Amino acid sequence: MAGVAVLHGACMIVLAVDCMGGDHGVKVTLPACQRFLERYPDARLLLVGQAEALAGFAHERARVVPATEVVAMDDAVEVALRKKKDSSMRVAIQQVKDGAAQAAVSAGNTGALMAIARYLLKTLEGIERPAIATQLPNAKGAATTVLDLGANVDCTAEHLLQFAVMGSALVSVLKNDGQPTVGLLNIGEEAIKGSDEIKRAGELLRAAAGSGDLNFIGNVEGNDIFKGAADIVVCDGFVGNVALKTSEGLASMIVGFLKEEFSRGIFTKFAAIVAYPVLKALQRRMDHRRYNGAALLGLRGLVFKSHGSADAVAFEQALRRAYDAASNQLLDRVRERIAHAAPLLADSAPTPLAQPLPA
Amino acid sequence: MAGVAVLHGACMIVLAVDCMGGDHGVKVTLPACQRFLERYPDARLLLVGQAEALAGFAHERARVVPATEVVAMDDAVEVALRKKKDSSMRVAIQQVKDGAAQAAVSAGNTGALMAIARYLLKTLEGIERPAIATQLPNAKGAATTVLDLGANVDCTAEHLLQFAVMGSALVSVLKNDGQPTVGLLNIGEEAIKGSDEIKRAGELLRAAAGSGDLNFIGNVEGNDIFKGAADIVVCDGFVGNVALKTSEGLASMIVGFLKEEFSRGIFTKFAAIVAYPVLKALQRRMDHRRYNGAALLGLRGLVFKSHGSADAVAFEQALRRAYDAASNQLLDRVRERIAHAAPLLADSAPTPLAQPLPA
Repeated sequence: MAGVAVLHGACMIVLAVDCMGGDHGVKVTLPACQRFLERYPDARLLLVGQAEALAGFAHERARVVPATEVVAMDDAVEVALRKKKDSSMRVAIQQVKDGAAQAAVSAGNTGALMAIARYLLKTLEGIERPAIATQLPNAKGAATTVLDLGANVDCTAEHLLQFAVMGSALVSVLKNDGQPTVGLLNIGEEAIKGSDEIKRAGELLRAAAGSGDLNFIGNVEGNDIFKGAADIVVCDGFVGNVALKTSEGLASMIVGFLKEEFSRGIFTKFAAIVAYPVLKALQRRMDHRRYNGAALLGLRGLVFKSHGSADAVAFEQALRRAYDAASNQLLDRVRERIAHAAPLLADSAPTPLAQPLPA
Repeated sequence: MAGVAVLHGACMIVLAVDCMGGDHGVKVTLPACQRFLERYPDARLLLVGQAEALAGFAHERARVVPATEVVAMDDAVEVALRKKKDSSMRVAIQQVKDGAAQAAVSAGNTGALMAIARYLLKTLEGIERPAIATQLPNAKGAATTVLDLGANVDCTAEHLLQFAVMGSALVSVLKNDGQPTVGLLNIGEEAIKGSDEIKRAGELLRAAAGSGDLNFIGNVEGNDIFKGAADIVVCDGFVGNVALKTSEGLASMIVGFLKEEFSRGIFTKFAAIVAYPVLKALQRRMDHRRYNGAALLGLRGLVFKSHGSADAVAFEQALRRAYDAASNQLLDRVRERIAHAAPLLADSAPTPLAQPLPA
C-alpha cells in the first residue's frame, strides 16, 4: 500500500468509482463525480468503466481506468465473481488492493460487491465476515449506525461481536468519540429475550464491555434505532435489511400521504404553500439520499456501497462518505480496534455457521 | 362450547376482558369497556380482575368475574403460568375455554399471555405454534396483516407455512376476500435470497399455492409492508417484532419532528394552524391506536392482545377487533382453512426446532 501512503503524504485522497454500477450507471455517477470534484479540491477520482461511456467526462483530477464488463443488478454472485473478471466493479476494488486508491465506491449489486471485495481484499485478522454498516437519522438529531444490513443472513454470536467492534471503530472515527455506545437489537430489553444465538451474543458483548473493548449498553428494540438510544445497533443482516427497508417503506408512505392530502383542494394547496418551509425541513431530514453510502467493514481496504437507485445527489453523498473514511484513516482505526479486541475475538470459538464465502 | 352457541343464537357476543393488564390497568380498561358497551348494544363483557378495583363500574351488560392475582408486565412466563393461577389474565382466558366468552382481550405481558393461552386452550390440529398477527396501514389505504410479531423467535419453514394459512383465514374473514395474497418477507425478491430456512419456506408456500390453499405471490421486502404489495406478510417473530417496532420508532420521530418544526416561530405556528386539517388527517392515518389489537392465531379459542401502553381509545379498538372476530366466526374459519390445508401441513415434516412450550 505504498501508493496510498505517498498520496496521503501529498494530502490527496484518491477514490476509485465504479461508474457503471447501479440502476442508472453513468447518467448518475458522472454528474455526481463532477460535483464531488468541485467540492473537494484535494480529491482525485479514478473513473472505472467502459471507455466509450466515460469519453465525455474530463476533469484534471479525474482519470479513466478502463473496464470492459459490467456487473448487472441481477447477476448471480457467482457470475459476477467468476465470469466477469474485467467488470468495472472488480477493477475499482482492484485499485484499492493495488494501493492506487484509498477507497472504492459502487452502486452495483450488493451481493456481488461484497463477494468481489472479500475475494480481492480479504478480511482483516480476527474478522470472519465483513458487514455492511449504514447510518439512519434519529430523534436526537444525530445518526444511528446499524450493521449488518444484508451481507450475512445467518449470524452467530461471534459475528455479532465482530460487528460491534467494527461498528465502534467506524463511529469513533466519524464522530471522533472514543467510546460510542453499542446496543444489541432484540425483541425486549431484558437479557432473557431472543433466540439462543442472541442471548449468547449478549453474553459476549457484556464480556467485551467488561474488558473495556466496547461501550455495550444492553439490548435495544426496533424503536430505539430512531430514538437514538445507542450510537451503534448490531443485528444480523436479515433483520437489519428488513428494518431498513420497512423504514423506507413507511417514510415513502408518509411522504405520499402528505402530498395527497395537501393537493386535495384549494384550501389544502394554500396550506401547503404556507407550510412549505416546514415540509421542506421534514423532507430534508427524511431524505434518505443524505444517508446514502454504506461502509463494507472488516476488509483490508475501504469499500462503500451506494443504493442502486441513487440519484446524483445521493451518489455524491456516498463519495463523500468514502472520502471522510479515507481521510480519517478508517482502515487503520478499525484494524487497531480489532487488534485490541483480539484476545476476546479469539476466545469466542468459531461455530458451524462460520463458513467463508466461496473464493 | 355449548355456551357460546347459545349466546350466538341469541345474537350476543361475550368478551372476557383482563381489566388488570397493561401499563395502566383499570384506569384504561374500564373507560374503554364503558365506551365499547355503548357502541355495541349486542355485546356483553366479563370484567375479570380484583373485585375492589372493579367495584366502581356498573353496566347492565357487564359482570365482574373475580381474580385475585395480576400478571406484572415484567413477570417471567414461568411465574405467570405456574405461580399466579388466579391471575386476571388466566381467568379471562379460562372464560373462553369454558365457553362463557367467545374471545378474551388482554393488554398484559405478551409472553405470559401466549403461554397461558396455549396452555389452557391448546393449539388447533395441524398447528405447532400459535402466532401473533396485527394489521399495519399501507399506501393503498388498506391494511397489511403481518405475522408473526414476537411469539416465535426461531421459526422453521413449516411454521411459516402454518402462519400463512392462519393469516389467510384471518384476512379472508376480516376483508371477506376468499383468496388474500400472501408474501414471504425476505431480503430480495428473487427466490434464491435469504437463509436456507426462508428458501425452504418459499418452496412450501409455492407448493401450497399450487394446490390452491394459498394465494402466494412470492418474496416481498420490508418496504412492501407499507406499500401494500401483499395482504399478508409472513415472517418469524423476531423479524416481525423488529419491523413493527422500527416503524413505530420512525413514526414517533416524524411526529416529534413536525411538532418541533411547527412550533419553532410565529410564522411556523401560523402555518401549523393553516395546515391543521392535513396534519390531523396524517395523525389519524398514522395513529397506531387505530391498529391496536393483535390476534393470537392457531389456538382453540380467540385471544386478542392489546399494546401494553394502550390508552382507552386503543384498548377499545382491541375490544372491537375481538368483537369482529367473534361475530364473524373467525375460529371456525381458521379451523376450516387449516383442515383444507391439512395434507400439506402434514407433508411438511416436523423439524428439531418444533418444540412445544413447557406446559
